[in-house]
Amino acid sequence: MFQINQHYLQLGESYLFSTIAGKVEHFRAAHPDADIIRLGIGDVTMPLTPAVISALHGAVDEMGVKESFRGYGPEQGYAFLREAIAETDFQKRGIGISPGEIFVSDGSKSDTGNIGDILGEGNLVAITDPVYPVYLDTTLMRIGKSDRIRLLRCSEENGFLPELPEERVDMVYLCYPNNPTGTVMTREELTKWVDWALENESLILFDAAYEAFIRDEAIPRSIFEIEGARRCAIEFRSFSKSAGFTGLRCSYTVVPRELKAITAGGGEVSLHHLWNRRQSTKFNGTPYIIQRAAEAVYTPQGQQEMQEMIDSYMQNAMVIRKGLMANGYTVFGGEHSPYIWLKCPDGLDSWRFFDRLLEECHIVGTPGSGFGEAGEGYFRLTAFNSAERTAEAIGRIARRSSTR
Amino acid sequence: MFQINQHYLQLGESYLFSTIAGKVEHFRAAHPDADIIRLGIGDVTMPLTPAVISALHGAVDEMGVKESFRGYGPEQGYAFLREAIAETDFQKRGIGISPGEIFVSDGSKSDTGNIGDILGEGNLVAITDPVYPVYLDTTLMRIGKSDRIRLLRCSEENGFLPELPEERVDMVYLCYPNNPTGTVMTREELTKWVDWALENESLILFDAAYEAFIRDEAIPRSIFEIEGARRCAIEFRSFSKSAGFTGLRCSYTVVPRELKAITAGGGEVSLHHLWNRRQSTKFNGTPYIIQRAAEAVYTPQGQQEMQEMIDSYMQNAMVIRKGLMANGYTVFGGEHSPYIWLKCPDGLDSWRFFDRLLEECHIVGTPGSGFGEAGEGYFRLTAFNSAERTAEAIGRIARRSSTR
Repeated sequence: MFQINQHYLQLGESYLFSTIAGKVEHFRAAHPDADIIRLGIGDVTMPLTPAVISALHGAVDEMGVKESFRGYGPEQGYAFLREAIAETDFQKRGIGISPGEIFVSDGSKSDTGNIGDILGEGNLVAITDPVYPVYLDTTLMRIGKSDRIRLLRCSEENGFLPELPEERVDMVYLCYPNNPTGTVMTREELTKWVDWALENESLILFDAAYEAFIRDEAIPRSIFEIEGARRCAIEFRSFSKSAGFTGLRCSYTVVPRELKAITAGGGEVSLHHLWNRRQSTKFNGTPYIIQRAAEAVYTPQGQQEMQEMIDSYMQNAMVIRKGLMANGYTVFGGEHSPYIWLKCPDGLDSWRFFDRLLEECHIVGTPGSGFGEAGEGYFRLTAFNSAERTAEAIGRIARRSSTR
Repeated sequence: MFQINQHYLQLGESYLFSTIAGKVEHFRAAHPDADIIRLGIGDVTMPLTPAVISALHGAVDEMGVKESFRGYGPEQGYAFLREAIAETDFQKRGIGISPGEIFVSDGSKSDTGNIGDILGEGNLVAITDPVYPVYLDTTLMRIGKSDRIRLLRCSEENGFLPELPEERVDMVYLCYPNNPTGTVMTREELTKWVDWALENESLILFDAAYEAFIRDEAIPRSIFEIEGARRCAIEFRSFSKSAGFTGLRCSYTVVPRELKAITAGGGEVSLHHLWNRRQSTKFNGTPYIIQRAAEAVYTPQGQQEMQEMIDSYMQNAMVIRKGLMANGYTVFGGEHSPYIWLKCPDGLDSWRFFDRLLEECHIVGTPGSGFGEAGEGYFRLTAFNSAERTAEAIGRIARRSSTR
């Protein structure tokens, strides 16, 4: 009989957020009148901004007229968007990334998963713990449970920043500002990793999906701000959280041309070339109208609207952070990130605290243990709900705390 | 040093259509005044229809308002679209496919490539020759050049329909109406394959991207019209050619719940479960506005507009087919397919004929050899240009033929 990829059988039965959705449905069925506030999944709630909506309408109109209709576009993305990205996100910040190094895609989830296609199965892979589940699950899908996966433990002791691996590893997934812990890497910290990668000829897969939430200019928003990163890193960026594109689907991946690997035959091969081959063979580009929407984010109006949206979410993050601290919680993140990582009170484990928060306060969060063993005993809240609902949620927690 | 996927090094340097684009650019630079007619790449030229445009505008407006804004949707697609698909494309035709068996995606190119993720590397894979390059290239990316790939030769002698493999193979890619040859499989022919798959416990990956172009009700539009196919087949469908969505990006894949495989441990596993895990881990769904556009294709107005568009392209196919035959060409396909497959005249090979057609008639087509060795000596033309340009192209060929 035909065979399946056996590695899939080693995966957990269901993706974290599906499990949470099931629990919430169960609770809702039992308590139909409960006013549930969702601070769980990292989904935005504010609508697309006027600049984006206007660009979408304009592009839709173009698609309805023969003269301006667009069929297949370049698999790598349209030049108008790649140029806008390169200019605003990199060149204006003094980072030398060219449009040709940018691959527009339909989401960082796709790209951080699919990047494995071009990498060898023999690599020793380091992944932080706790971690965004996609890195680990897609690695498991590709190479199976094996001694080639190393978990880099992040804990209160190391400020939720991984230490350099003691042994040689071939590639590492880093995500900063971090999901789920909300922590950031300073320039010094990130430089340490780039230097390590160059010395060890290792590859850094850098997920910068939350860079727009950084409030301090001294903290790097791109790994390519660090000297030498062009020779050891791939960076993933997304419009999902910064511009509210979770339902619109647009992201991009930067593969610098200097990034090379050595083939089994001893030759040099560019990862830019491999990723281009992967994308042009297995992907047909992001929809034209979506790329026009992303382009609109880079107009002066689009930039201002995006900033206001981010400011508003970061105001929520502050409300959560301060509210929790005022009620005796130990809290991390939330300063340069929409994620607040808290230590579960009363020695509760993550799922017990999930249940308590849902039952007592009707608030949905995400259990830290869902992000890995090292997340056990912690819990993630997100700043993506409205100001009113966020304040209401923190009010409920405060009232519960005061009656304990 | 970190390792890459060495299989990529065995791939041809560039994807077929990139090579063609390069040649056309070169010709255009040398002949800036030439009026080039493109009958090469299978891209549509008619704009999106009014029903689709109206649905897009409506959905865009929803995304600009907090109350109707949609963030992350279900990775498998929204229920409204899966239900419309199941009802119109299957149930109304007496085919028992349920909404839950339908996975909405961003393109058949993605899905026919990504489906390999859930399949074992040890499978013996059969692929027709000539073939849509994606099946072969993505198989090579996954398992490398190996004795586990069998090419099923399609030629004039067998009417460009593959014969059943003489030895056991584990899975086969079939595409009917066929790209590139434009041929179709009758019910008897397709039944033969389903029976073979059931007897051999093999998997059929059935690409039905062109089913909407079938003009004869007796020819199956879905493999699931065949008894037993729910236990041996996955079907890929696309809105690209039928509704002009090549720039909008929407497709779907049908994985019946009865489709099972045996694990190494002897247990049973459902491919529906595996594909669901793959999609929910490595994909974040098709944009909401695009799914609303696809839904509009299933309204009475949308269905009528789609049919008019298809009729118009099929009128082109007839013009090409008859025009070529009248000028002494041997022609296949084009009756239930937008593709016309012709035998290169004067014993020319495919690329020589490409050059001649470009130089003498300023027409771009696709060399048959680009689809595999068995395509050598043949050439593909597509019916997707306008009626005027198609007629002009055939007129140029006729004038050239008469002066030879």
